[in-house]
Amino acid sequence: MPELRKDPVLGRWIIISKERQKRPTDFPVEVSAGLGGFCPLCPGNESFTPPEVLAFRDGGKPVNGAGWSVRVVPNKFPALIIEGDLSKEGIGLYDRMNGIGAHEVIIESPNHNHNFADFSPAEMALVFKAYKERIVDLEKDLRFRYVMVFKNHGRAAGASLEHSHSQLIALPILPRMIVSELEGAQSHYKYKERCIFCDIIRQEIQQKERIVCQNDRFITIMPFAPRTPFEMWILPKRHSSAFYTQNDSELYALAELFSESLQRLCKCIPNVPYNYVLHTDPLRSGGLEYFHWHFEIVPKLTSIAGFEWGSGFYINPLPPEEAALFLRESLTLP
Amino acid sequence: MPELRKDPVLGRWIIISKERQKRPTDFPVEVSAGLGGFCPLCPGNESFTPPEVLAFRDGGKPVNGAGWSVRVVPNKFPALIIEGDLSKEGIGLYDRMNGIGAHEVIIESPNHNHNFADFSPAEMALVFKAYKERIVDLEKDLRFRYVMVFKNHGRAAGASLEHSHSQLIALPILPRMIVSELEGAQSHYKYKERCIFCDIIRQEIQQKERIVCQNDRFITIMPFAPRTPFEMWILPKRHSSAFYTQNDSELYALAELFSESLQRLCKCIPNVPYNYVLHTDPLRSGGLEYFHWHFEIVPKLTSIAGFEWGSGFYINPLPPEEAALFLRESLTLP
Repeated sequence: MPELRKDPVLGRWIIISKERQKRPTDFPVEVSAGLGGFCPLCPGNESFTPPEVLAFRDGGKPVNGAGWSVRVVPNKFPALIIEGDLSKEGIGLYDRMNGIGAHEVIIESPNHNHNFADFSPAEMALVFKAYKERIVDLEKDLRFRYVMVFKNHGRAAGASLEHSHSQLIALPILPRMIVSELEGAQSHYKYKERCIFCDIIRQEIQQKERIVCQNDRFITIMPFAPRTPFEMWILPKRHSSAFYTQNDSELYALAELFSESLQRLCKCIPNVPYNYVLHTDPLRSGGLEYFHWHFEIVPKLTSIAGFEWGSGFYINPLPPEEAALFLRESLTLP
Repeated sequence: MPELRKDPVLGRWIIISKERQKRPTDFPVEVSAGLGGFCPLCPGNESFTPPEVLAFRDGGKPVNGAGWSVRVVPNKFPALIIEGDLSKEGIGLYDRMNGIGAHEVIIESPNHNHNFADFSPAEMALVFKAYKERIVDLEKDLRFRYVMVFKNHGRAAGASLEHSHSQLIALPILPRMIVSELEGAQSHYKYKERCIFCDIIRQEIQQKERIVCQNDRFITIMPFAPRTPFEMWILPKRHSSAFYTQNDSELYALAELFSESLQRLCKCIPNVPYNYVLHTDPLRSGGLEYFHWHFEIVPKLTSIAGFEWGSGFYINPLPPEEAALFLRESLTLP
């Protein structure tokens, strides 16, 4: 019997349709050949990117030279541009404004062939620290209301460069996913005076079946109503609405769990393409009791396509309880 | 200068980022080889599908045999099943119900190689008539709240069979796209006491620049804030919230414009894969003053991928005014 499930935050219904497919190997992954050629993100090629806005490098090494471990540069082909006024305008029914914003690339490693899932926790923590520092810096720009941090991994998930990197876009508006989440979370809070994500974590820890892995500070779960097979959320166990408030030791604990989660996923589905998006609070919102920052990791499996993304209605052939079991059993950790 | 635009119904912001790509030929389309082999949708193979629920065939020809022009059958691998109770249930925070629903395939032509965009208006009108008759029939089942009609055309858009077909899913819940549209439209109506789609049509006819084509009864526009290049909406000019209320002559006028719109699109981007979804009112809602049924056609261009579908935030490299101009100029009609 297929099942209809509702996401408690967004009110989004999805179908779990077990009749169709079942095991991880049923999801074909196209392995694309290496793109080869010149890489503008590699050390030594710093002059081929716009000047860096942040870099972690050993003391004494000059800016925009080699010797960095993580480097953040403006996107050479930005979707939004940093200079100018918003010039908000109504055209009859419609609203528009200038495309003012920041679009940056976080180069996650100097090593061209270093796969993000294989990063050590220390390496990954440095990437998260770069996210944090960029958010803190961009928050000062009063034109911006939100910083969206995301990663496209693999060509099927939209990555156009092989070298491990993520992106951020600072926006003068709130993206729809955040507006919907804030509204859903707020309406739960009004009714219960509790954070809905804290409630979700409590229920997941009690029910156990959708937990992928956890440590003292973070937990990786499959959501009750996932859009795709193997969708995962990573949340801090302690309530926090703002990603940038995490200190170094918290970022390290996050990196430990993030890397374990990705390793489990890649063990189950080698070369899986995926997107992740950081869901954090709007800039300068100053600590929200009803919202809880988290990462959403959405594997891009080629068998999932079609009208879903246009209609907001998803058919998922794999129940998250089974997917979580696959991932729990995929790795035997020491 | 890139531009941020807001959809007036959904409140969804998108980026028009002209810096990136521009002409129709910049969107590569992967042409997949014919799948070949046995086709369960072809005449003569009727016994390989579940028994038909509707067919238009010349008088005297037996059901579930050949001789039909449009045939509707239950999906052999349904996402939802028709028999059973909903058994709605709460599990702590979460809501679930049995996956009860109808999942049907509308076989649009007996001719295996007949491309939907090349259908004559009479042939296409018959497909729309099948949509209508199935909606009217499924509305009688009080377990269902919505019938979603959609088409996946081309492998990149999720089609797994070559033979021209669309699908419908009758649902015991309202899909998220419809909930959001109803809410957005309702809030406009509360404020203005006018249908927002009627207002959009009025403004588009005045501004002209986003019109693709029109006839007496229908209009094809590119929305002000399109998710992808060449996204098109086809709307009735006269207010109507329910697709199924259209009579034969209206369905024929719709087919004329639908086919012209697709021909213009395919002329501009040969072999373009696309999805379309019928947006109509919930079952038994009895005529809504604030909602307006329409089709949304969303081309699936391979260069558009990545985090967008997960975040509800879209970057579109082609302004709809330019896309509409390409389509207006793509065909010289007699």
